[in-house]
Amino acid sequence: MRTGIATVCLSGTLKEKMQACAIAGFDGIEIFEQDLVTSPLSPEDVRKMAADLGLGLDLYQPFRDFDGVTPDLLKANLRRAEAKFKLMSRLGMDTILVCSNVATATIDDDALRADQLAELAQLAGDHGIKVAYEALAWGKYVNDYEHAYRLVEAVDHPNLGTCLDSFHILSRDWDTAPIENINPEKIFFVQVADAPKLSMDVLSWSRHYRVFPGEGQFELAKFMGHVVRAGYTGPVSLEVFNDVFRQSDVDRTAVDAMRSLIWLEEQSANWLADAPAAGTVPGGGAPRRRYPMELATLPKVNEPAGFNFAEVKADDTAQLEKLLGQLGFAFEGRHRTKDVQLWTMGQARVIINEQAASHAEPAIAALGFDVDSPVIASARAQQLKAPVVARKVQAHEEVFQGIAAPDSTEIFLCQGSPDGTAAWTHEFGEGLQHPSAGARAVIDHVNLAQPWQHFDEAVLFYTSALALEPQPFAEVPSPSGLVRSQVMQTSDGAVRLVLNLAPVQQAHGQKTYQEHIAFAVDDLVSTARAARDKGLEFLQIPANYYEDLDARFDLDPGFLATLQELNLLFDRDADGEFLHFYTATVGSVFFEMVERRGRYDGYGAPNAPVRHAVQYDSLHRT
Amino acid sequence: MRTGIATVCLSGTLKEKMQACAIAGFDGIEIFEQDLVTSPLSPEDVRKMAADLGLGLDLYQPFRDFDGVTPDLLKANLRRAEAKFKLMSRLGMDTILVCSNVATATIDDDALRADQLAELAQLAGDHGIKVAYEALAWGKYVNDYEHAYRLVEAVDHPNLGTCLDSFHILSRDWDTAPIENINPEKIFFVQVADAPKLSMDVLSWSRHYRVFPGEGQFELAKFMGHVVRAGYTGPVSLEVFNDVFRQSDVDRTAVDAMRSLIWLEEQSANWLADAPAAGTVPGGGAPRRRYPMELATLPKVNEPAGFNFAEVKADDTAQLEKLLGQLGFAFEGRHRTKDVQLWTMGQARVIINEQAASHAEPAIAALGFDVDSPVIASARAQQLKAPVVARKVQAHEEVFQGIAAPDSTEIFLCQGSPDGTAAWTHEFGEGLQHPSAGARAVIDHVNLAQPWQHFDEAVLFYTSALALEPQPFAEVPSPSGLVRSQVMQTSDGAVRLVLNLAPVQQAHGQKTYQEHIAFAVDDLVSTARAARDKGLEFLQIPANYYEDLDARFDLDPGFLATLQELNLLFDRDADGEFLHFYTATVGSVFFEMVERRGRYDGYGAPNAPVRHAVQYDSLHRT
Repeated sequence: MRTGIATVCLSGTLKEKMQACAIAGFDGIEIFEQDLVTSPLSPEDVRKMAADLGLGLDLYQPFRDFDGVTPDLLKANLRRAEAKFKLMSRLGMDTILVCSNVATATIDDDALRADQLAELAQLAGDHGIKVAYEALAWGKYVNDYEHAYRLVEAVDHPNLGTCLDSFHILSRDWDTAPIENINPEKIFFVQVADAPKLSMDVLSWSRHYRVFPGEGQFELAKFMGHVVRAGYTGPVSLEVFNDVFRQSDVDRTAVDAMRSLIWLEEQSANWLADAPAAGTVPGGGAPRRRYPMELATLPKVNEPAGFNFAEVKADDTAQLEKLLGQLGFAFEGRHRTKDVQLWTMGQARVIINEQAASHAEPAIAALGFDVDSPVIASARAQQLKAPVVARKVQAHEEVFQGIAAPDSTEIFLCQGSPDGTAAWTHEFGEGLQHPSAGARAVIDHVNLAQPWQHFDEAVLFYTSALALEPQPFAEVPSPSGLVRSQVMQTSDGAVRLVLNLAPVQQAHGQKTYQEHIAFAVDDLVSTARAARDKGLEFLQIPANYYEDLDARFDLDPGFLATLQELNLLFDRDADGEFLHFYTATVGSVFFEMVERRGRYDGYGAPNAPVRHAVQYDSLHRT
Repeated sequence: MRTGIATVCLSGTLKEKMQACAIAGFDGIEIFEQDLVTSPLSPEDVRKMAADLGLGLDLYQPFRDFDGVTPDLLKANLRRAEAKFKLMSRLGMDTILVCSNVATATIDDDALRADQLAELAQLAGDHGIKVAYEALAWGKYVNDYEHAYRLVEAVDHPNLGTCLDSFHILSRDWDTAPIENINPEKIFFVQVADAPKLSMDVLSWSRHYRVFPGEGQFELAKFMGHVVRAGYTGPVSLEVFNDVFRQSDVDRTAVDAMRSLIWLEEQSANWLADAPAAGTVPGGGAPRRRYPMELATLPKVNEPAGFNFAEVKADDTAQLEKLLGQLGFAFEGRHRTKDVQLWTMGQARVIINEQAASHAEPAIAALGFDVDSPVIASARAQQLKAPVVARKVQAHEEVFQGIAAPDSTEIFLCQGSPDGTAAWTHEFGEGLQHPSAGARAVIDHVNLAQPWQHFDEAVLFYTSALALEPQPFAEVPSPSGLVRSQVMQTSDGAVRLVLNLAPVQQAHGQKTYQEHIAFAVDDLVSTARAARDKGLEFLQIPANYYEDLDARFDLDPGFLATLQELNLLFDRDADGEFLHFYTATVGSVFFEMVERRGRYDGYGAPNAPVRHAVQYDSLHRT
């Protein structure tokens, strides 16, 4: 699959954008006209730079408001087009995108439109240019890709074809199956963009909220599957208008973009493998056709079986040790060669890393996941352009395959054992053979704060590299603003990551992003009592909360008293019940203990505002 | 008018919110339930604090999903309501907001709804509580305020009334005139919110994009006029869910909120004075009724007649002096007692202030506006809670009335003269009697960068204090992201302020907000030639721009060559033409010279991306 990206997706100057695209590995780019018009580079400079960078200049875009106009306007439009064709010759480009008319069309007549497009195609042919005509979702008269293609067919000129853009097609819910009926020689270009499903006017949606494939909710693999089955072999190019990407670091965004295409390519191949071949009976076992577009695939991984460990880091680790001890964790010893400690409770393993920079406050540094094959999972992540994390290892120590997540949390791909143990624990203390005695416990979920400019990137990262599935997002009120909360999890809930997009926290200059690790136990009340007896500092839940809880749930008075006595929070839904408590925060980390009753699958979302408010309040009082 | 605000409008804890509301001068507040539930303050604490702060506790809200339910659910809902009634007694509150059912209603039957509301009213009566029933715009069965009122009428219980919320009414485009038909004794509460007109689902619009009155596009004065004519006398309270306000400084947002109500009160009085009295013939001169709600008014101002001056400030002013001299400004001397210089060109006056902090880069510090009466305009601004700016003056010097804009630009209200001179220029140099000779020139517009968290506040500030009118906003692409651009101007265009909401400029750590002052001259080409001959450093416009210009406008080749030779930009619309050029930037300031031809009323918006790109590029190369 030939990969491409429109320069409008990225921040910076044309030169910065081109360099970033080349570094990220794109085959070609679309030159968004404004990026050229505002650039000090001459067309010849751009042509040479593209050649030097090994970047194809695959599409010049957009040419607007051409068709369905009066004869006077047609003349002016053809003059304008010819100027652009000449410019393209200097750039060494051969394909231009012409969008269906939005603003100046006054005549709704397909015969007239076809005549005007034919004139344009003729002129383009004279300059060796191909015109890719695209139906904008909000085109005045032409807003459906099949309509645009009918015009292309009617004109039947070698220099006129169509451009298929997933946003314009999927935002309008057009059926994508008829793409297969398009003559592949008439598909001059394919643009892809994903988007969250928003209920707003399609123009604003398109201009501000598009995201890279895998970061939204469109069925892009299916769209691409139909494109491949149509026989298309040209560029598949990202055109994503996004307010955040436009102001983010250009090199980083380009890599995020490239990752989305690599992932889309694999998903498209998967869709083609699973989907009934066109014209065959589902399950009929007809031999699968080969398609002219070659789709690369990635090393395959299943979703992780569980958390292997979580690692926290600090200069002074005393507070972390104290908290874990009070929660019931056992200190299992130090590593033979590194300044790290192992603490366990059942199958929940926490590494305390003492190798932090001086004065570094306690923070979550790394997460380990149990995967079928660390080597294969790491190969997949690297093909998805995840940065590799290097860890020094000595002879006879387990080699950890590590990659860096977008928020710079280190992600380690570990060998899971069916019995829930981890081989590397032998490197600690006296050589542990088994998990310590004590309460049964696992890491239930980990909550990571994401910088606003890397939130979508993080969703794609965990989707593509770790096979986690994004759930519908929630918004939680806090005293510093709304917190957007996105759960990424495995189908069985064995791994649950919560990505929080924190508000900028301008108010009161507060800047700490709090993150936490939650452990699940069988009996939270006992765990809480034991922790209290060891002097644990619980997050103090206001009395008003328990009154409201009672009003909402009509709880048994004894049970309610227990909850209040132990600062426990409670939730109930149709699937079951949820009990949980939080510790005080040290540095940017706190811990949570949870008990899931029945099939409760949430995170106590109704209680999140209480947690935020109390944490805010205690930050303020200190 | 009794003023109020819901705690959900603001950031922080309940305690911080209450203090901010008291300082801003609100009469009362609505307690948003979650703010109480998450607070460590007991209901008794809140009651005492409100009393100490002189704040009424006017509404407890919201109570959700009560009506149209099955008998079982009704029982649980009544139990839940009674718990809240008891809580309200402890708070000393007597009114609760009950929203029409969104989630749990299963029976669409007005008779049943009325029966259930009657039961609730009866229970409320037993506890001395009044229920204000409100139709949410997205209520499952009840989403129209007239429908809600019909239910209230049907129940006819002294403890059941309605709540009118401008958002729920205006977002659905319900006619507001029938508000006058509501029995005022049955209007228990009125909530107001403004909003930009967005085309999106009403729930998302409501939860994220509400703004304070005067910051959006709803006809709130008319809404309030009908409420007043209905005979309502209770609180008028802000309920504004806004993602930005929720994370902004609480004290500042509370003042912004209070300003919006003061302004709305005046606008409502104006609407009532102008609107035909209910039931009278327009222009029939029927004596105006007096209404029970008293509406305070403000000192009246007309829109300013023009800019009096602009002031730039720096530690080292050499670069500013050089630029102004090259543009054709004349140095008119220094002030008798202050370290400031006066530079003029026609009626364009620029003060260079040398009293900046050491190492302070050149920046726009102040703007003077010609108003009918500086004293009255200042009184108005102060009643609108604009902070006063103090300037030291000596005997025989003109006293400037100054206020601080939200971005901390100092705004001075000056006495304009019909001949365009300014009396205070006598304090400079040899005592100027007249404007200097030279080109005719005026300050055309000033472009100020607004921090993202103060943008809406700035729109209301200039609307209410300076009588400028917001125009539809534009979005301009720049290499660091989209720039939202909001023009505020007088009806004759004599004063034009452009407020730019800059992107966060995360990319490349760039943080400078560039601002500029634009001067209009009669003959831009001559001005540019003269400036070039004096060695002015123009912002360099790329050759690609002129090719595109030619493709778009088919310009005379000689004219196009002149434009390119002098780095001039060009725009044309149905009203006329616009020529302009920019200087290089010093500190955070640059200058623009413009020529308006015909009735051109814009700012060369199609050229703004070029300006941004070249400025970005030159910032990067240095």
